[in-house]
Amino acid sequence: MPVPLGELALRYGCRLIGDPEQLVFRVATLAAAGPEDLAFLANPQYRRQLTQSAAGAVVLAEEDAGECPGAALIHDNPYAAYARIASELHPPPPARRGIHEAATVSPSATLGEGVSVGPSAVVEARVRIGERTVIGPGAVLGEGAVVGSDCRIGANVTLCHGVRIGRRVIVHPGAVIGADGFGIAREPDGWIKVPQVGGVRVGDDVEIGASTTIDRGAIEDTVVENGVKLDNQIQIAHNVVIGEHTVMAACSGVSGSTRIGKRCMIAGAVGIVGHLEICDDVVITGQTMVSRSLTQPGVYSSALPADAAARWRRNSARFRQLDDMAKRLRRLERAVGETAEDTPQGETDE
Amino acid sequence: MPVPLGELALRYGCRLIGDPEQLVFRVATLAAAGPEDLAFLANPQYRRQLTQSAAGAVVLAEEDAGECPGAALIHDNPYAAYARIASELHPPPPARRGIHEAATVSPSATLGEGVSVGPSAVVEARVRIGERTVIGPGAVLGEGAVVGSDCRIGANVTLCHGVRIGRRVIVHPGAVIGADGFGIAREPDGWIKVPQVGGVRVGDDVEIGASTTIDRGAIEDTVVENGVKLDNQIQIAHNVVIGEHTVMAACSGVSGSTRIGKRCMIAGAVGIVGHLEICDDVVITGQTMVSRSLTQPGVYSSALPADAAARWRRNSARFRQLDDMAKRLRRLERAVGETAEDTPQGETDE
Amino acid sequence: MPVPLGELALRYGCRLIGDPEQLVFRVATLAAAGPEDLAFLANPQYRRQLTQSAAGAVVLAEEDAGECPGAALIHDNPYAAYARIASELHPPPPARRGIHEAATVSPSATLGEGVSVGPSAVVEARVRIGERTVIGPGAVLGEGAVVGSDCRIGANVTLCHGVRIGRRVIVHPGAVIGADGFGIAREPDGWIKVPQVGGVRVGDDVEIGASTTIDRGAIEDTVVENGVKLDNQIQIAHNVVIGEHTVMAACSGVSGSTRIGKRCMIAGAVGIVGHLEICDDVVITGQTMVSRSLTQPGVYSSALPADAAARWRRNSARFRQLDDMAKRLRRLERAVGETAEDTPQGETDE
Repeated sequence: MPVPLGELALRYGCRLIGDPEQLVFRVATLAAAGPEDLAFLANPQYRRQLTQSAAGAVVLAEEDAGECPGAALIHDNPYAAYARIASELHPPPPARRGIHEAATVSPSATLGEGVSVGPSAVVEARVRIGERTVIGPGAVLGEGAVVGSDCRIGANVTLCHGVRIGRRVIVHPGAVIGADGFGIAREPDGWIKVPQVGGVRVGDDVEIGASTTIDRGAIEDTVVENGVKLDNQIQIAHNVVIGEHTVMAACSGVSGSTRIGKRCMIAGAVGIVGHLEICDDVVITGQTMVSRSLTQPGVYSSALPADAAARWRRNSARFRQLDDMAKRLRRLERAVGETAEDTPQGETDE
Repeated sequence: MPVPLGELALRYGCRLIGDPEQLVFRVATLAAAGPEDLAFLANPQYRRQLTQSAAGAVVLAEEDAGECPGAALIHDNPYAAYARIASELHPPPPARRGIHEAATVSPSATLGEGVSVGPSAVVEARVRIGERTVIGPGAVLGEGAVVGSDCRIGANVTLCHGVRIGRRVIVHPGAVIGADGFGIAREPDGWIKVPQVGGVRVGDDVEIGASTTIDRGAIEDTVVENGVKLDNQIQIAHNVVIGEHTVMAACSGVSGSTRIGKRCMIAGAVGIVGHLEICDDVVITGQTMVSRSLTQPGVYSSALPADAAARWRRNSARFRQLDDMAKRLRRLERAVGETAEDTPQGETDE
Repeated sequence: MPVPLGELALRYGCRLIGDPEQLVFRVATLAAAGPEDLAFLANPQYRRQLTQSAAGAVVLAEEDAGECPGAALIHDNPYAAYARIASELHPPPPARRGIHEAATVSPSATLGEGVSVGPSAVVEARVRIGERTVIGPGAVLGEGAVVGSDCRIGANVTLCHGVRIGRRVIVHPGAVIGADGFGIAREPDGWIKVPQVGGVRVGDDVEIGASTTIDRGAIEDTVVENGVKLDNQIQIAHNVVIGEHTVMAACSGVSGSTRIGKRCMIAGAVGIVGHLEICDDVVITGQTMVSRSLTQPGVYSSALPADAAARWRRNSARFRQLDDMAKRLRRLERAVGETAEDTPQGETDE
């Protein structure tokens, strides 16, 4: 589905340097693009690929336009403009409409117009599915689950009973939403299960990655607000609340009852312990462990970066002596008569 | 299904302060509960919500009873008592009985009385399923798998061939039990697969979280003993043994052939390397890496807590100099004539 | 299926000490083996079990043969020889042939001879499946996916549209290959999705663990080269390239566009950030965070090992003062007149 550059410029608010009649057919990387392809430049790391690119057109920022050998679509936010143009050039394949004969749909379920249910999918009693939503093959929607319009529920996804999903939500294959939270109570001879009677509420425009798990609440609901984007293999425990437009990269986990603010950016493999408050606009770098509430916006870290193993072994052995070293250092300072005037700095809190 | 407080007190061994005829209908949090609801107080963090609560009744400990504005159900272990009462007020929905017509059950499988098999589920040859067990939609039970009575096998769960599951076991959606362990042998031109001919044995009263994976043994079985509770997205490698009543939080992983004792409590995102022994009654805090056997009960940790990124960067850069700093400190002590009398403390082992 | 030792020696290039007519029936551990069983010794940790073993025969290295009480099959690489022999003694059960009547196979799919498709599996339009490949129950192969010959696609696996898998590939249950990469672009009022129009290419002889996820590329493909072995619950982001014969243990994750070389060995729970280059023959130990490119072969680490929590708390509190300690140390050295002659060592790079 080729589109003329002039139309793209108009539709997505770009300034065009080039021929408005020139067609682009698909997206490609700067390095691989040919004259029918549209590329983009958003990460300065790839700037030196621009001058060599054979791309028919490139979406980029004003300051890079001078280097562009072909047509340029100039936008303040070239990555977002690229995203919108790419969505037009590569629309999702039209979904099969209707209920596949190998799907199982309860007679008490309510399906909006244009809903698609794939083979081996299971839609249990009293489920409600909004218009044009696509239920992938093998997906299971438990009793009373509610899914809004224009959603894409991937293959082999499980939405447990009563889970409520908003509109335009994408759930990738293998995700599980609404399994019991991990509630157990200790007794002298073991653990007993604490019933998990809450649900899960997912807002509009949320994306949930493959094999991500979001548990139902113990009493009240687990909540994922509008616009949240979760990557693959994330674990969201019971009664967590994730604020609007917060994004989390793969393999991160949030323990029970923690509340995360709006617009946070949480990198991969981060662990956040339970019953904390993370305020709005917090950024957490990869593999960080968050064990206290974060009440100030800002960037937080805790993982050590990789080092050559021989040196790492020596240093990590010394880590076990660190408190001792600190005391010895203080003693030496006293012996030498040094005043450690900036010592307190190291002890102030963030 | 409302229940009079007097009956609850009697059935669950609570001392009641209040009217034995008063009914409760459901559970609720202290903050949200109304006069028909039962709440509980177990975590002191929520104590200040008690006095304001409009709950009809609260399950709590003796020392909190004086603050309770409504009826009080007093118990030494209020969380466990709450769990039992909540199970009565919120019983799991009655399972559909019998084999759904869209399930595939091998004629050589043996199903106990009252077994339920959901749509799209697959029960392969020679599987045996105990009485009243519920097999969720899309679940797959491989050839010769054995599941005891009163189990709940969630939607899209996979039990591979020959896996053996005890009684009253809950397996949440998407879990995979009995996939091949990660056995590979190096050869000059790559790796070859080592057949995994062991199985998996899961005891009674075990709970296994969503998308948790438990691999089959290389030669002998991987074993999960009675009463173990595993949260979501846990990885248990081949030939691991997890002792009775041990609990593990989400995203933790145990490498091959490690044996974990009884009554251990392992927090989230913990990694335990292979071929270790973890003794009984060990507690491991979140994101810890266990790389040596732990032979003494106690609490173990290794993850650094999050810090403001600017300070963290400075400190983590210094970590690469830590061994060097230790040597310089020692040299200074010698120069100054200090005797570092408590140096050895830092080097002792746990 | 008993096999005489003489045949095994001949077939797998072992030197036999013992009776070539003696039969072995199955594999067993050194500790549990009886006279009909074959055991192996590859890990020196188990050497002391050899002398007590009642195994009919043991596969081992030359230097251990003297201690072997029964027959010995001597090989330079006993673990690999054992792997091959075990594969002969324990062949995978013969797969059911053909398309199960409860599978859904598109009329436009092309299936090679001897293909098996299990119940509730779904094979979408234009899928191509090579000879003798087994598609497990509940697996979903999206539109246009291509799977080579002699593959085993496990139960409840999802291969998304257009994914290409080589020959002799094993994909364990619950894995998801080809879900959208995590591509989002920031706009003033939230995030928009960046279409993921690339695919996934998996080479020959690859093994992919249970619940592992491999995302499709943003524009070009995500690539897993020949002979790669991935354990369970691994996350491979969009546009990652994993070089031939690299192996990764469970729960590790690789962020977008990172390229990993050949023959790397990556332990469990390792996190590798995006847009990096990891050269050939790198070894990364468990729970390491790799945040810079690694350009030299060698072993890399960053996780601290578990310590008793009381000491760990003191030391991790001091970690927050480490930069401050380093400055104070330097000041003291100046005050005392020490020349820190080996200071630079700590600052050199790997």
